[in-house]
Amino acid sequence: VPRPSAPQRANLRLADIAQLAGVGLGTASRALRNEPGVAEATRQRVLAVAEQYSYVVSPEAARLAGRSTARVGLLVPHLSRWFFGTMVEAIDGVLRDAQLDVLLYAVGDLEDRRRFFKDLPARRKVDAVIVVAFPVEGDDLVRLHSLGVHVVAAGGQHATYPYVCVDDFAAGRLAMDHLITLGHRRIGMIESVDVDQPRQPTGRSRAYRAALRVAGVPFDPALVARIPWGGEHGAHAMERLMALEDRPTAIYAHSDELAFGALRTARRLGLSIPEDVSVVGVDDHPMASLADLTTVRQPVREQGAAAASMMLSLLQGSEPPDRALTFSTELVVRASTGPPRLRDARRR
Amino acid sequence: VPRPSAPQRANLRLADIAQLAGVGLGTASRALRNEPGVAEATRQRVLAVAEQYSYVVSPEAARLAGRSTARVGLLVPHLSRWFFGTMVEAIDGVLRDAQLDVLLYAVGDLEDRRRFFKDLPARRKVDAVIVVAFPVEGDDLVRLHSLGVHVVAAGGQHATYPYVCVDDFAAGRLAMDHLITLGHRRIGMIESVDVDQPRQPTGRSRAYRAALRVAGVPFDPALVARIPWGGEHGAHAMERLMALEDRPTAIYAHSDELAFGALRTARRLGLSIPEDVSVVGVDDHPMASLADLTTVRQPVREQGAAAASMMLSLLQGSEPPDRALTFSTELVVRASTGPPRLRDARRR
Repeated sequence: VPRPSAPQRANLRLADIAQLAGVGLGTASRALRNEPGVAEATRQRVLAVAEQYSYVVSPEAARLAGRSTARVGLLVPHLSRWFFGTMVEAIDGVLRDAQLDVLLYAVGDLEDRRRFFKDLPARRKVDAVIVVAFPVEGDDLVRLHSLGVHVVAAGGQHATYPYVCVDDFAAGRLAMDHLITLGHRRIGMIESVDVDQPRQPTGRSRAYRAALRVAGVPFDPALVARIPWGGEHGAHAMERLMALEDRPTAIYAHSDELAFGALRTARRLGLSIPEDVSVVGVDDHPMASLADLTTVRQPVREQGAAAASMMLSLLQGSEPPDRALTFSTELVVRASTGPPRLRDARRR
Repeated sequence: VPRPSAPQRANLRLADIAQLAGVGLGTASRALRNEPGVAEATRQRVLAVAEQYSYVVSPEAARLAGRSTARVGLLVPHLSRWFFGTMVEAIDGVLRDAQLDVLLYAVGDLEDRRRFFKDLPARRKVDAVIVVAFPVEGDDLVRLHSLGVHVVAAGGQHATYPYVCVDDFAAGRLAMDHLITLGHRRIGMIESVDVDQPRQPTGRSRAYRAALRVAGVPFDPALVARIPWGGEHGAHAMERLMALEDRPTAIYAHSDELAFGALRTARRLGLSIPEDVSVVGVDDHPMASLADLTTVRQPVREQGAAAASMMLSLLQGSEPPDRALTFSTELVVRASTGPPRLRDARRR
């Protein structure tokens, strides 16, 4: 390697280091920033050249050049639940393939979330943030925006940022129309009102009323049990619904976890599924097939991967092909739903 | 602030900056490294002093001082499964409270893991690594060691590094002794052989043989179904066991997910639980109570938090009080286990 004269040394740029080391610009950059994807021998050669010419990587310059940290922050509640864990796994896979690191911010409850938006621990540590399936609004939104980085919402609609989600109204209609087609008219709804939910509860709730309306069935508020998220709550809701004098012949639960609770209550009451009562959920949780639960499948892994791809487009400086991506859902019929008993059908 | 003379400026250290700004050493360090936990006004004051005296944070010096990156790498397979997600959530909580960031490395399958140990993307990016519930051996262990950082194993025993786990043998004995106390003698085992398992399958398997031996029941290999991890596999294993001419009156499954599959098979065969066959699992998965499954509870959140605390001790330069922490498990009796039918008990 020819030793350049003094003025040249002062002006040495990344491109010069790359040329002197006989590698591409990207490889030189990765080698100097200790990023993976560079053979060890190559890395050593680049570092030797950089040292020889006293070249120093400037974090500020790197930041200005676009990809300063090579890290993406992942803001995720309820990591212990299947939906969130699956989402994160899929996002991580796509980002890792692009040699980006994932900084995890587990915000389990409202207090964690408040603290995150107050302290913004991700500040200057990430190039982008993916918010997994919870709504960010009001002051939190302003704080998130103040990070000055790209944001994508995975598993939920978002007015401000690009997002990936499912159509919750359509999912709810699939579940409800299935019950109505089987002949059910007296249908209970177990409605989750947890604000942390990945889904828009309003979409799944609106589907209930819309389906009844189309079928000409009047809405009966006694048939709706509004509860916080969780299987135990689903079980209690089912107790209430099955204690009604004119009890429902079918149950539409906002999620499979709620439905699992409903199934337990039915079992404990000695009710046969689906002869005495049909139950349908939403999600296709991995346990749904083990519980023989009819449900509406949403593609979780695919949503996570799509959100990560969207983020890659943004980081590369191009707008993603779609700023809003809605995945479709499908009905999966199993043994928990069937026609109502003849006497139940006749009563009406 | 008095302006020091030239020689003083050259010697200015972090302690000087801290004193000049009127803050502690830790606060000065955090402020200069843009870490959270410092009020904005304080941060600005520290930065102003540093700028005035041309003080520059040296990453090399910081690294030598101990905590260079303020990041911990989390190596975790199967994030979509409850056990792993819960573990990560607990670890993240403790590390975040200590103002450490979590770099996530989701290594879902063997190929991911191979790639991680080959490329070591965590190199120079973390001060420590927590391995969540999978064994690291042979060349992988050498590669992991080459990172030159602290390592803790969460949810599994490890010969080399400090670890947190449960006693799988004791857990298995709780399940088996429960069945034997109820009067069962012909007990089937659904044994998971997935190498990725968080538990030591050998511990849970050894418990089966040991419990039988103590009860004076000869070991019958026909009663053992070895399968990969997963509910569907559990369901198939149950089909095989219940097709035996002299079929078992009780099933000991290595994990609740396997037991859920077994319960589905029993239901589909029209068998009553526990009258026709008892089923016990291990873990106390959140779905276990919804499935009325008797199981052995292991504290997952507690294991994660303890592993993170262990790591904090190591990062602070002190050995943790215990390098091996084994949590105890407890039997949770629900409706899936009961005494065998009289005729089954009499047959023997």
